[in-house]
Amino acid sequence: MCGIVGIIGAGDVSIPIYYALYALQHRGQESAGITTFDGKTLFKHKGPGLVAEVFDEDILHELKGFSGLGHVRYPTTGEKIAENIQPFTFRFMGRFCAIAHNGNLTNTEKLREEFEKRGQIFSTTTDTEVIGNVIADELRKSGRMEDAVLACMKRLEGSYSVVFLSEDKVYAFRDPLGIRPLCIGKTKDGYIVCSESVAVDALNGTLIRDVRPGELVCISKKGLESVQIAESSGHAHCVFEYIYFARADSVIDGRLVYDVRRKIGQALYLEAPVKADLVSPVPDSGIAHATGYSESSGIPYREGLIKNRYMGRTFIMPTQEDRENAVRIKLNPVKGHIKDKSIVIVDDSIVRGTTSKRIINILKDAGAEEVHMRVGSPPIKAPCYLGVDMPTREELIASGKSNEEVKEGIDATSLHHVSVESLIDAIGMPADDLCLGCLTGVYPLWIKGEKACPRYTDFIKGSYQTNIKEFDE
Amino acid sequence: MCGIVGIIGAGDVSIPIYYALYALQHRGQESAGITTFDGKTLFKHKGPGLVAEVFDEDILHELKGFSGLGHVRYPTTGEKIAENIQPFTFRFMGRFCAIAHNGNLTNTEKLREEFEKRGQIFSTTTDTEVIGNVIADELRKSGRMEDAVLACMKRLEGSYSVVFLSEDKVYAFRDPLGIRPLCIGKTKDGYIVCSESVAVDALNGTLIRDVRPGELVCISKKGLESVQIAESSGHAHCVFEYIYFARADSVIDGRLVYDVRRKIGQALYLEAPVKADLVSPVPDSGIAHATGYSESSGIPYREGLIKNRYMGRTFIMPTQEDRENAVRIKLNPVKGHIKDKSIVIVDDSIVRGTTSKRIINILKDAGAEEVHMRVGSPPIKAPCYLGVDMPTREELIASGKSNEEVKEGIDATSLHHVSVESLIDAIGMPADDLCLGCLTGVYPLWIKGEKACPRYTDFIKGSYQTNIKEFDE
Amino acid sequence: MCGIVGIIGAGDVSIPIYYALYALQHRGQESAGITTFDGKTLFKHKGPGLVAEVFDEDILHELKGFSGLGHVRYPTTGEKIAENIQPFTFRFMGRFCAIAHNGNLTNTEKLREEFEKRGQIFSTTTDTEVIGNVIADELRKSGRMEDAVLACMKRLEGSYSVVFLSEDKVYAFRDPLGIRPLCIGKTKDGYIVCSESVAVDALNGTLIRDVRPGELVCISKKGLESVQIAESSGHAHCVFEYIYFARADSVIDGRLVYDVRRKIGQALYLEAPVKADLVSPVPDSGIAHATGYSESSGIPYREGLIKNRYMGRTFIMPTQEDRENAVRIKLNPVKGHIKDKSIVIVDDSIVRGTTSKRIINILKDAGAEEVHMRVGSPPIKAPCYLGVDMPTREELIASGKSNEEVKEGIDATSLHHVSVESLIDAIGMPADDLCLGCLTGVYPLWIKGEKACPRYTDFIKGSYQTNIKEFDE
Amino acid sequence: MCGIVGIIGAGDVSIPIYYALYALQHRGQESAGITTFDGKTLFKHKGPGLVAEVFDEDILHELKGFSGLGHVRYPTTGEKIAENIQPFTFRFMGRFCAIAHNGNLTNTEKLREEFEKRGQIFSTTTDTEVIGNVIADELRKSGRMEDAVLACMKRLEGSYSVVFLSEDKVYAFRDPLGIRPLCIGKTKDGYIVCSESVAVDALNGTLIRDVRPGELVCISKKGLESVQIAESSGHAHCVFEYIYFARADSVIDGRLVYDVRRKIGQALYLEAPVKADLVSPVPDSGIAHATGYSESSGIPYREGLIKNRYMGRTFIMPTQEDRENAVRIKLNPVKGHIKDKSIVIVDDSIVRGTTSKRIINILKDAGAEEVHMRVGSPPIKAPCYLGVDMPTREELIASGKSNEEVKEGIDATSLHHVSVESLIDAIGMPADDLCLGCLTGVYPLWIKGEKACPRYTDFIKGSYQTNIKEFDE
Repeated sequence: MCGIVGIIGAGDVSIPIYYALYALQHRGQESAGITTFDGKTLFKHKGPGLVAEVFDEDILHELKGFSGLGHVRYPTTGEKIAENIQPFTFRFMGRFCAIAHNGNLTNTEKLREEFEKRGQIFSTTTDTEVIGNVIADELRKSGRMEDAVLACMKRLEGSYSVVFLSEDKVYAFRDPLGIRPLCIGKTKDGYIVCSESVAVDALNGTLIRDVRPGELVCISKKGLESVQIAESSGHAHCVFEYIYFARADSVIDGRLVYDVRRKIGQALYLEAPVKADLVSPVPDSGIAHATGYSESSGIPYREGLIKNRYMGRTFIMPTQEDRENAVRIKLNPVKGHIKDKSIVIVDDSIVRGTTSKRIINILKDAGAEEVHMRVGSPPIKAPCYLGVDMPTREELIASGKSNEEVKEGIDATSLHHVSVESLIDAIGMPADDLCLGCLTGVYPLWIKGEKACPRYTDFIKGSYQTNIKEFDE
Repeated sequence: MCGIVGIIGAGDVSIPIYYALYALQHRGQESAGITTFDGKTLFKHKGPGLVAEVFDEDILHELKGFSGLGHVRYPTTGEKIAENIQPFTFRFMGRFCAIAHNGNLTNTEKLREEFEKRGQIFSTTTDTEVIGNVIADELRKSGRMEDAVLACMKRLEGSYSVVFLSEDKVYAFRDPLGIRPLCIGKTKDGYIVCSESVAVDALNGTLIRDVRPGELVCISKKGLESVQIAESSGHAHCVFEYIYFARADSVIDGRLVYDVRRKIGQALYLEAPVKADLVSPVPDSGIAHATGYSESSGIPYREGLIKNRYMGRTFIMPTQEDRENAVRIKLNPVKGHIKDKSIVIVDDSIVRGTTSKRIINILKDAGAEEVHMRVGSPPIKAPCYLGVDMPTREELIASGKSNEEVKEGIDATSLHHVSVESLIDAIGMPADDLCLGCLTGVYPLWIKGEKACPRYTDFIKGSYQTNIKEFDE
Repeated sequence: MCGIVGIIGAGDVSIPIYYALYALQHRGQESAGITTFDGKTLFKHKGPGLVAEVFDEDILHELKGFSGLGHVRYPTTGEKIAENIQPFTFRFMGRFCAIAHNGNLTNTEKLREEFEKRGQIFSTTTDTEVIGNVIADELRKSGRMEDAVLACMKRLEGSYSVVFLSEDKVYAFRDPLGIRPLCIGKTKDGYIVCSESVAVDALNGTLIRDVRPGELVCISKKGLESVQIAESSGHAHCVFEYIYFARADSVIDGRLVYDVRRKIGQALYLEAPVKADLVSPVPDSGIAHATGYSESSGIPYREGLIKNRYMGRTFIMPTQEDRENAVRIKLNPVKGHIKDKSIVIVDDSIVRGTTSKRIINILKDAGAEEVHMRVGSPPIKAPCYLGVDMPTREELIASGKSNEEVKEGIDATSLHHVSVESLIDAIGMPADDLCLGCLTGVYPLWIKGEKACPRYTDFIKGSYQTNIKEFDE
Repeated sequence: MCGIVGIIGAGDVSIPIYYALYALQHRGQESAGITTFDGKTLFKHKGPGLVAEVFDEDILHELKGFSGLGHVRYPTTGEKIAENIQPFTFRFMGRFCAIAHNGNLTNTEKLREEFEKRGQIFSTTTDTEVIGNVIADELRKSGRMEDAVLACMKRLEGSYSVVFLSEDKVYAFRDPLGIRPLCIGKTKDGYIVCSESVAVDALNGTLIRDVRPGELVCISKKGLESVQIAESSGHAHCVFEYIYFARADSVIDGRLVYDVRRKIGQALYLEAPVKADLVSPVPDSGIAHATGYSESSGIPYREGLIKNRYMGRTFIMPTQEDRENAVRIKLNPVKGHIKDKSIVIVDDSIVRGTTSKRIINILKDAGAEEVHMRVGSPPIKAPCYLGVDMPTREELIASGKSNEEVKEGIDATSLHHVSVESLIDAIGMPADDLCLGCLTGVYPLWIKGEKACPRYTDFIKGSYQTNIKEFDE
């Protein structure tokens, strides 16, 4: 996953971009980069690590210019090498360009081969360089950015929210299914396009709206322009943004994420009520869900585990027992809350199950009588090919296992995942506008070796078919 | 304020000390240091910054030895220079020694002069070097550590929780009033003495008990030994450890800090009830108090402000308006929760009032109709001379102001501080065993220019007197 | 200027490349990079600074593989940005490639435009990326490296010594005029191609020979292969490599550089004899020349200036006088040698004249009676377009000035530059095989706005013509 | 060995101290430190590494004040720990003090015990802290610095050149035998005291004179004051300063070091003439000696080995052969000068013999027919207890071996060390004013287990006696 931002301002935009990236830090901690343009020169600085580690005040003051892009990266494709850190910058026809991307193309290799056949080389292993090439290739033919992006969208497959700087203009576009989020904000003296509305908030700006699936937006000193490039009968917004990935205080496609999670928490009690002394979140991912659970159940909200707010490294300790204990420096059970108590513990999701098991055992070691696990997502049964880093089916604890089996696997007293229907209700969007691929194993677009069905309502009616494209190739 | 730790183990103790310091990081972020002894050589490493910045695995592996001390520092006395970073190490009579200290002596200058009169020089400006000298001076006379510490306690005035390494033994002692916390834990293969029980938890150890006021404890390969060195009719445990300083999951003098704060939160509603749509903590300091308020009031607990979990720097922005906005990158209002709502916001304390005012205005800007401020401590009216870094009376917003005046000053709809009586009840300790100096302006020991009264019950009866000692000197 | 190296070995080549780059450090101090290939993966590490600053043992151990390239850079073209640090790496047709380059193309812009017309983007501003594209473009057509390099040489104009890694093979080629040096050595278990023979020495290898102008060499596990790709009637070896740039202990095109410089020093006395008490070099650049001068004159060799061997920074001092003095921390006059003495001071060249003037004044301040300046190059009258960083004509002190005027300008008692004829004699190569562009203002190939004449013998006969190509364009 | 400096100026002295330390860098590369005083506060910064690594412009600008000390350290006593980095700073009687020291006390342990007996602790393991304590102890008694230093000199044994800052005054004193150098210079707006005159040169100052053995000098805004504190019938200036340690461009006790070395080089030819094709120094230590040898012999001076001027690290290579070769990255033979030639190679001294052997073999491998080794010091037969880091007798190649045996040991064609008499002549000082301990094994003061004889002329007459003091103790 990644976080992207593009800003046009009246003065230098490097500090606003820094603040926006800092607000989007949860979307990627591996590397960060900023590119700006001051009317003449393209400035850039990128590096591995957190935004606050990569940049300092001196560096930001050297990044001059009223237009710019920023990126934080959690790797989906491409090796962990310096060249892969975004924004990717290039010169084309004498113009300075930069591009930053969130998502995952599913036809990268095919596109790369097309270019290589005509003698082109690639200096990174990212999707982003491929998108840059496609845009340049199309620009050369048409000369107009709208036509180039339209042609580009026809060639790209997969998920892509893109910000693109061409000197004093910042373009932004989102794939026709709207898989990854992208929104537009008005700042005091310009515009921002960014992955989540919290970046708009960080600049004290006003959220205008989301970039529409298939829309091309351009911000410049002249203002905001928009063209609807591609239309799709339905969308495929990623449900995992709501469940886990986005910040609780973000508003995505009109919905406050905290609210979605709180409603999921309420549904969790209604679907599987239990008597208990307290409801505690797994910090920080389960907090919003847990407040909802406390509200609908009336069971007091009280932290059973305290997270250490400082960043520390865990070192290799000699024995397995020592290593297990090392988890405690990050997550400490509040024994006085737990001993001889019946506890509902709420988390956003279970992936491999190892963390859940460890937490439950920490609580039991601290004297908990019962530990009821409640989970803010339906069981995850299949991998994601569209930008969320997920393990293989073999590693997913819920893939091919019953609820009872998973419960045993994580040592919980009882276990309940929210239902797909309650999830859809909490999001409050038509089921056919959501991507539920990781929950159903059926995807909204063709992926080699997987089943596809663009509409969930068709899927539950059984009217999807095996992906036959792979046999053709 | 500082955090201290001493460990005796079967193998190398540097990684356990690192984990313990990491658990105590909230007690000091300016610098960190570790000293160990391997039977022959004293190893040490110290530096400015967080524990995870000062140490890495290579450094920890070079710190060999089965006995050791650690320290995290928030400066109370002594300039910010490299030599002042603790533990302070020295050689005496061919023995390697190290010392780490939490607290604040009130007679440092007098002691320093005594030593200088006999030709002694000081290489740091810390209390710690003075304590080291006093111990060495007394050891030379008596030859026995118990006698030396006893004599030392007679010479030291103020607050001091000390860990002292003399090669393969770690001594720990606490001033007779027990002002700063200090506790003992059993680990798998040894012992730990540390400022708070969370450091014991970090090693999966078992909390044995607090070091008693006036007690000298010695841990070594032989086990745990203890001597009661000094007795005091009453104690003076710092109430600010419970209100704000200690971690919520620590147990101090038998009380779970989270529980004390939750009870304060309950009292806040009972003392000053209000109708509201939600109760929100100021993250993270007000969380425990807010859960208590939600329980006693029945008003739903819901976060009105989300704290950015990553560490970022705030850069100088051109205008005042920009600078104000920069706060938002740390603390973002959840507009969807706030707009047109009546909110109870709970924080642990108000010092200067600037942060409270800023938060209330952020909430109002986000559309809050009413913002009721509830505070987990009584009004702070006087400075602390015993280890907590507090501003002068002039800077304390509550010093010499009425509740109404403070309310106006921070723009709150209503304001209530918990009463001293409810605070004492929540702690659950006799009033005469607490230091309430910053709340009453009357201190449990003589401080030049201030009023003193060792017992709160005498104070409220009016039977204290002006400190006349200063006229004698 | 830059230094390049390519190595094929039996084991990991990163440490040998490090040593070779360290031996070539004088060719570029701005940045350094190493790329290696282990049969499966391409490893790389690059950064700003000296070789010893960019690499440490841990980094070198991560750069696995038996084939690899290295580069040290002194910028000629391309901005000072991270992407421009060489080797430049790319993927093409599924193969990992890397390229490093020393020299300066004179038709970069034209080539870049050609590629852009077919929709290609460039991610760096270096010649090296352009050469990489040309090779890839030609490889696509021909499939054979020899044909691709042949075609590439036809398209490139200017100076280029190139090492090119295509997985387990390292190719090396040199422009048809042989402007920049490039040589081949045999190591214990493989081969090395590098800018200067000192890099072969650093690995205790044996210098085989120079890469011939227009030759393509390939080293691999199979051994050394060579194809003469392009022939040229005459060559244009850069005389500045002999005068200043190369290390004295290098052997270039069969000549020991130290010997060339010593012979220049001898000629300096014979051309302009003077009586003096001692002959001193300007350290370190004039040492070899000064030993020659001492030999032919019989005047004792004795250092009049001592250079501080440590690297230090010069800080801004408040007054101009203070700033002037700051030079002395780098270069200290040995007063005991200088006072009341007549001194011959020998340097390799004079560019702007400011350093010479400063040195002469330091010597005079230290009491020198006479300071006779002798210079190891003819007067520099024109800029270099082929890889040596030189200032504009306006900044060159000897451009358009008489010997008398320059002498006055630098405050010397007398001044003599070696003659072009003695320089050619000292190098011992036909004049028509040398590039003397910066000394004559007439270049061996077409450069926009300059005069060109491929053969020096024609030039001195007057049979050159104004470059008319520029009017055609 | 160490380098020390003290400066009084009109403005801030941190940059002048930096430049002075940079000029003295050859005296110590392990660590560096600067302390300044601005009339109110003592500023300091210290760290491991070279001067240019420890300081940058920002740090220097924070070190405010018109008085200050500097130190570079090559460890003689004391472990390699942060606290041991000098200047050592302390507070005494409300005054800020700092001290820096070059030399080696021979009664440190005895002094330390005296202090510990009265209950004093030591926070470093350096002589410097002991000297600081002795001065403070005596100051307390007398109140006058002159009396304190006089009393201090009576208690200290061994070698000590000391600079001592007491707020706005800088004191400097040198042991009564004048073992280590120390000199005084006048700068534009103040004074400097420093180990060698090159530090005066670096500030464009004027060397006034050496601090006399047994003299106490004080520099302040009032000017320069001096008291002769102690007198000694003879002195014991270290000959190794002239042979190797000091910079060639320094003037010590009135002698230009370069001149002494050149005269030694002349004597080397006269004492042991040889026919050869060239004379080459071992760079950089043998350069001055080699120029003298070339002058007296008429054999041309030409470098047979070129030293890499950049700093590089040598990494562990897999085989012994590889490791041997790694020397070549630092020192490359100029084959063109060496092949089939007879070479005189001149170095300043031979300690263990391993480097000499390696260099001779490099020259032979490069084709040298004969390698005649000439050495600028007499054979080193005994260790130094007075500040020069030397190995034990067992490790000294010349200890107990004949010239023939050493020659064989280092593979030289012939070998000659300069005689003690020629060395004394070259220095031009009475033999009885020199310390020749490492050459004779007889020392100018009592050292436990060694023979002592204060005057060389008595020693060669045989009138010294075995040190019997050790049997008394």
